[in-house]
Amino acid sequence: MKQQYAVGIDIGGTNTVFGIVDHRGDTLYRGAISSRKHTKIEDYIDELYAALEPAITQVGGIDSIKGIGIGAPNGNYYSGTIEYAPNLIWKGIIPLAKLITDKFGVPAALTNDANAAAVGEMMYGAAKGMKDFIMITLGTGVGSGIVANGHLIYGHDGFAGELGHTTIIPNGRLHPGTGMKGSLESYASATGVANTAREFLDQRQEDSLLRNYPYDEIDSRIVYDCAMQGDTIAREVYEYTGAILGLALANFVMFSSPEAVILFGGMTKAGDLILKPTREHMEKNLLPIFQHKVKLIFSELKEADAAILGASALVWEIKTEAAR
Amino acid sequence: MKQQYAVGIDIGGTNTVFGIVDHRGDTLYRGAISSRKHTKIEDYIDELYAALEPAITQVGGIDSIKGIGIGAPNGNYYSGTIEYAPNLIWKGIIPLAKLITDKFGVPAALTNDANAAAVGEMMYGAAKGMKDFIMITLGTGVGSGIVANGHLIYGHDGFAGELGHTTIIPNGRLHPGTGMKGSLESYASATGVANTAREFLDQRQEDSLLRNYPYDEIDSRIVYDCAMQGDTIAREVYEYTGAILGLALANFVMFSSPEAVILFGGMTKAGDLILKPTREHMEKNLLPIFQHKVKLIFSELKEADAAILGASALVWEIKTEAAR
Repeated sequence: MKQQYAVGIDIGGTNTVFGIVDHRGDTLYRGAISSRKHTKIEDYIDELYAALEPAITQVGGIDSIKGIGIGAPNGNYYSGTIEYAPNLIWKGIIPLAKLITDKFGVPAALTNDANAAAVGEMMYGAAKGMKDFIMITLGTGVGSGIVANGHLIYGHDGFAGELGHTTIIPNGRLHPGTGMKGSLESYASATGVANTAREFLDQRQEDSLLRNYPYDEIDSRIVYDCAMQGDTIAREVYEYTGAILGLALANFVMFSSPEAVILFGGMTKAGDLILKPTREHMEKNLLPIFQHKVKLIFSELKEADAAILGASALVWEIKTEAAR
Repeated sequence: MKQQYAVGIDIGGTNTVFGIVDHRGDTLYRGAISSRKHTKIEDYIDELYAALEPAITQVGGIDSIKGIGIGAPNGNYYSGTIEYAPNLIWKGIIPLAKLITDKFGVPAALTNDANAAAVGEMMYGAAKGMKDFIMITLGTGVGSGIVANGHLIYGHDGFAGELGHTTIIPNGRLHPGTGMKGSLESYASATGVANTAREFLDQRQEDSLLRNYPYDEIDSRIVYDCAMQGDTIAREVYEYTGAILGLALANFVMFSSPEAVILFGGMTKAGDLILKPTREHMEKNLLPIFQHKVKLIFSELKEADAAILGASALVWEIKTEAAR
């Protein structure tokens, strides 16, 4: 049978990773190029093509490829464009899906990275068989992908699911990237955790392992290490982060009543340090009718593969949509 | 052609209103009974049947009725049950759809009142032709119905869309009914507006028309009347309410990216007094990618008919679901 593989491409601010994935979610081939080398998008796509072409030949040529799925910041599923992505070097509106299709000769589908992760989770991960769940990506930023009635919510314009930018603490911490105050991302991202640690160190006199590190170099990894060594302030940073994340999740649950909220990304390495306070505060802020019903779990996708897998899963999703 | 009518029933805490509606949304007959007279649900349904039976006969008998749609607080679409509704006299889990079907001999569909209003709006009102919108009901409480991809979001358990209970101001105003603090309902409902007025009167010394009314009798209607007469405090009550509602709506928009947010219910009589500050603060709290895209409008359904119409519309929705 032909057309049994999908290409998954994940475009990050620094690197682009890609791979060829089969229907079971096994990644047969992996590669990476820089996202910052070519200011002309056509040159970037040429390099991408050159990097993928040998692998495509190896699995049987382009006729074996059903399509190409792409996850990218501000990726729009409806239009196939990347629109004003602050972290990418291509400015304005980039018709990426069309450019990829023109170059490779197969259909291409594009969405934002968190939506791609949600589709991947639904096909291969913890959300297998679920029709209603919310994926929250906790990395440098906070992203989200929302599935209801078995399908991603794209909204009227393709941009639904920007939960990281919802306001949780009115007039709270300034987000330097957006200018907004008190958004979830300004607290629950890795950047937010580091900022909370610095705030706590400023406000308090007590000793802390965190004070052994240069103030400006404190990152979420250092906070984690200190917390694991029993440092009080570092532990309280996670409790504070979990309290805000839990409050936000309670609001999201009362919106779409998902079967599960799935946490994904670097911050989940903190394990129970982040999961326990998040669960406690999520439950506390739910109406009784929603309490003790929602699974709060970590992604089951290996992080190295997840971005490629999620993007590639879009290709099978195209099929599903068309068959409806 | 047979089966051309739907019965719509809206169960409120005090009264139950009902009617017979045709496919164009014209209500042919209206009636009402008390929701509080019978503590036994079977007796209540007997009275409902007795009240509806003559009208059903008049439109051609039960064979002309395609089904019965019911809007009720805590109504669950999946199970057809009312579950632990605090404002109704029947406690616990009431299998209402089944009881109605057994009594009348036609299919019955049940959902909460705000979801019913959203379906009504989609079939006959301002959301005609929209696939993504959010309905917010601003009455004694704050309810919501969310439509994405052309279908109501029910969630995994049938209880999705309780946006009135999301926390907007952490540790804010206590909601005596739920025990939660800072929920949207505690500010943006008619009750919330009256409470804000009392708070402002307590905090300030300045003169206000509101002081001409007994403190405990101030309601949203009085605040509206005073605001229309130019009273500063009364106007600021609406600005404050709109600021909180607008912030909440911005969060909802970044969740599902609807084409429109439709406001419905008694509070919308305040017109621009509530609409202007709500719109301003919604826009202010949106990521640029969402700004100036979302219609913020009032319902186009006549309030007297809307409850019946929305509930009856569920009957045609059943058909739509089955035909998928």
